[in-house]
Amino acid sequence: MSRHALSQSTPARGVAAPRRVLIVGGVAGGASCAARLRRLDESVEIVVFERGPHVSFANCGLPYYVGNVIADERSLLVASREMFRTRFNVDVRTETEVTHIDRRRRLISVRDGRSGNEGVERYDALVLSPGAAPVRPPLPGVDLPGVFAVRTIPDTRRIRSWIAEQQATRAVVVGGGFIGLEMVENLVQRTLAVTVLEKLPQLMPPLDPEMATALSEHLGARGVRLHLGDGLAQIEAGDGGDLIVVAESGARLPADLVILAIGVKPETALAKTAGLPLGPRGGIVVDAQMRTADPHIWAVGDAVEVPDILTGQETVLPLAGPANRQGRVAAEAIAGRATRFRGVQATAVVGVLGLTVASTGASEKGLRRAGVEQFEKVYLHPGHHAGYYPGAQPIHLKLLFSVPDGRILGAQAVGAAGVEKRIDVIATAMQFRGTVHDLAEAELCYAPQYGAAKDPVNVAGMLAANVLAGDMPVAAWSGLARTDAVVLDVREPDEFAAGHIPRAINLPLSQLRSRYGELPPDRELYVCCEVGQRAYYAIRFLTQRGYRARNLSGGYTTYKALRASGLTP
Amino acid sequence: MSRHALSQSTPARGVAAPRRVLIVGGVAGGASCAARLRRLDESVEIVVFERGPHVSFANCGLPYYVGNVIADERSLLVASREMFRTRFNVDVRTETEVTHIDRRRRLISVRDGRSGNEGVERYDALVLSPGAAPVRPPLPGVDLPGVFAVRTIPDTRRIRSWIAEQQATRAVVVGGGFIGLEMVENLVQRTLAVTVLEKLPQLMPPLDPEMATALSEHLGARGVRLHLGDGLAQIEAGDGGDLIVVAESGARLPADLVILAIGVKPETALAKTAGLPLGPRGGIVVDAQMRTADPHIWAVGDAVEVPDILTGQETVLPLAGPANRQGRVAAEAIAGRATRFRGVQATAVVGVLGLTVASTGASEKGLRRAGVEQFEKVYLHPGHHAGYYPGAQPIHLKLLFSVPDGRILGAQAVGAAGVEKRIDVIATAMQFRGTVHDLAEAELCYAPQYGAAKDPVNVAGMLAANVLAGDMPVAAWSGLARTDAVVLDVREPDEFAAGHIPRAINLPLSQLRSRYGELPPDRELYVCCEVGQRAYYAIRFLTQRGYRARNLSGGYTTYKALRASGLTP
Repeated sequence: MSRHALSQSTPARGVAAPRRVLIVGGVAGGASCAARLRRLDESVEIVVFERGPHVSFANCGLPYYVGNVIADERSLLVASREMFRTRFNVDVRTETEVTHIDRRRRLISVRDGRSGNEGVERYDALVLSPGAAPVRPPLPGVDLPGVFAVRTIPDTRRIRSWIAEQQATRAVVVGGGFIGLEMVENLVQRTLAVTVLEKLPQLMPPLDPEMATALSEHLGARGVRLHLGDGLAQIEAGDGGDLIVVAESGARLPADLVILAIGVKPETALAKTAGLPLGPRGGIVVDAQMRTADPHIWAVGDAVEVPDILTGQETVLPLAGPANRQGRVAAEAIAGRATRFRGVQATAVVGVLGLTVASTGASEKGLRRAGVEQFEKVYLHPGHHAGYYPGAQPIHLKLLFSVPDGRILGAQAVGAAGVEKRIDVIATAMQFRGTVHDLAEAELCYAPQYGAAKDPVNVAGMLAANVLAGDMPVAAWSGLARTDAVVLDVREPDEFAAGHIPRAINLPLSQLRSRYGELPPDRELYVCCEVGQRAYYAIRFLTQRGYRARNLSGGYTTYKALRASGLTP
Repeated sequence: MSRHALSQSTPARGVAAPRRVLIVGGVAGGASCAARLRRLDESVEIVVFERGPHVSFANCGLPYYVGNVIADERSLLVASREMFRTRFNVDVRTETEVTHIDRRRRLISVRDGRSGNEGVERYDALVLSPGAAPVRPPLPGVDLPGVFAVRTIPDTRRIRSWIAEQQATRAVVVGGGFIGLEMVENLVQRTLAVTVLEKLPQLMPPLDPEMATALSEHLGARGVRLHLGDGLAQIEAGDGGDLIVVAESGARLPADLVILAIGVKPETALAKTAGLPLGPRGGIVVDAQMRTADPHIWAVGDAVEVPDILTGQETVLPLAGPANRQGRVAAEAIAGRATRFRGVQATAVVGVLGLTVASTGASEKGLRRAGVEQFEKVYLHPGHHAGYYPGAQPIHLKLLFSVPDGRILGAQAVGAAGVEKRIDVIATAMQFRGTVHDLAEAELCYAPQYGAAKDPVNVAGMLAANVLAGDMPVAAWSGLARTDAVVLDVREPDEFAAGHIPRAINLPLSQLRSRYGELPPDRELYVCCEVGQRAYYAIRFLTQRGYRARNLSGGYTTYKALRASGLTP
């Protein structure tokens, strides 16, 4: 037994023997658990084992350290071993790997990464917070010098050094998700020419494809080259000391630096070896108190499966917020408090070169994958604040909701400003199982710099409520190519002339009341304008005149996004 | 009878006689009602009577037109008569005053402001949206040239002209509420030297005084002179063609321009004369469908009393968001739809010279006024995003919650960034009667530029939950002067030396575990740090060691605000 285990076999301070809680992993969930547990129970002994050199570092800040936006590495150290010791009386052992769990005897085997010494540690409660590791596909060349993942401070230190030493000017980022996009921003910030290679035909996999097009266009306009719908085949060493990223299509992308940001997978080796059950998504199975199948072992963070609050289905969601909450819940459970992790809803945001992309809840493709069919959606493109105040930027917003009860299922938003605020509000409504009617009635901050008398959130709710009430039937964009409906564009002629859906006919809203008789009374009308508002007005008029009319939700703006994403011809 | 009334006595278009809906007031609530009603019912005749020259203008933008931030007056015109006619088939008559309601015969008397012609109009349904008028106290000099209120576009046009013609360099703004502060910003923007005269000893009356100090300090630092706790006595014409604002204290404030922004009062003359009941707050009494005591008359907007969702008590809340929603509800009710106005919660925001002030729900003084005693509060000062990412700005946040159930009662926030987002999230939780536990568990957008793994909203909820659980008893700041508790400051010595609560003793958290024996075991401890976090950690340790300890919530930062607002010595 190790020195520490022995020292604890004798109860200290003449009180009842303190319980001994060991935590494996000292970032996010693990650090949160340690700090919370200490606040709840002064008597328990807490030891944190962290494989890396740092405890509680800001892993979400790593890309910005590469970009030199965060210039001082020390900024990333949220807490130190010393702070854990003096502030929380928590013993943190960095560069110490936990190699084995002996569940029967409640012992873990640990190895000091510096000395190589091994030992065992006794626990009353064990918390696993191993996190998730970047996926490193078993492809030729992924271990070549100059190919990096982004998980730890040493990782980013190596990238910084490589850029400096190699005077790198070209980077390929493999993977267009959160980390990939944050790396794009920061490599552009370092003036590298950046190419993104993404296997899916879109960036940001959590979004529906048509919502990702604004992002693609934005990156394209900023000089980022996008190579979508093409996977990584291998990486070759070029002649001049550079790298060639070879795509599955055969495309060859030269680079001085390659970032692998394909995703992460739960680090479950330790749990698996110990015989703890893993779930269908590959994460450690836990209950609502974050306890594994072993009553003495808890698990938190990126490595566990947790229920999605919408579907109740288990999911793996590698995000810092939920990890922190889970760490707190585990601490509360260990301290004997009533507690419960409420599940996750996948609220997330990423900023890329001035654009913000945020989402919460389910995507349309996620709903379809899950077999959910009773839902509807609206698109809108409101300004992020009142239009009469200068500087309003459009927010492209998609709201998914259940039919007929109107429960909010998910939302996605893209824009230059005010984006994550709207997603946060919708996420909060979803937390309460709110409906689109609740969004319509939300009373939010309004002054002209901040919002509108009808905030984008209100408008989204109102549009959806119109759909539910039958006041604004929506057309399926996906059926546009096949329908025999007349596509009616109610914008003004100059707008129509500047671009329109190929089959559309033009009859401006301003003339509709006097000219509606020109429309074929027996044909269904798919009505379209720039963003959907005038089409809605037209539909209200037309349906009351006996026409069958549907809104092409989001109007020509959404059409362009759908076309760009290949979802409509 | 007028031409219009006559023309409608003959049913048009060979269908059942359309109902005739008249709307008095064409801004916010009235305009909203007209547009919504048309969408719901194509057959009804809708006429809007607006006393002023403009329909549906952006009254919330008026201060910014004075400041030339909105340079083109036409930007303020959200909709025109023409647009109402072509888009909605709504007949808008501007510069037309409604002078009388004959409820028995369902007639209103109208006067054309240009021709002076009078007439009567028949209604099936009448909607009153008269708004609220700036309070103009009956004091000497309030009608002098150069003294202005800010309600209409012509008002602001006159202010702009006056500034230009008089080459005004000094302004006194009477009233430090929303409009007053927005005028301060815009007059400073026009390079005028601005003095604020406010009768209360604080700016922004909806806030609690200690939350307004950050605002006062910010304005002071930007050169705005504040004359608080002193009312307006009269305004005199000075010798040089200037004005002298004389305060109740006798102070004489010279000015080239005076803005009266003392508040507004519901425009209820028409309703009152018609015998419609007014409520205790002076507004028109309506039901949840916005219907007055007369089954043919609805009322919406700043002139009505509506229930506060927290207290259920009727209140008058002159805000554009609720006015718009009320207009919609009235339209839905008139169209025979099931509808209900859910009440108001007083969510509001104002931006002043780079600072954002926002609030929702009740203030502490409001709760005390209402006789509510079972509540508690926490103060916090988190960064608006993760501290490791450059540029985090503090948000000063106060959360009020019910004891013991934790229901959120209100929140106030002040800071340079991310302020209204947090208030919007808390407002949304309040809409669902959420608790502080819900805030602790909220899953919000996190990337380092946008928030933190524990968002300020989460932290507020966690702190409040700690109070409810008894883990962090809070001390009453108001009792600090009288208590015999020991004030313990757990910051580091250099922080303590830079300023502290007069009676405080210093024992840093980093030394607490080794030195706590120095503390008197029989005395209560009021524990303080910079913002409250370290004090919380100390309290958790101390209470588990048998001490009685309470947190001076918000720490020395809140102490300074309380001292500045005179709430503690």
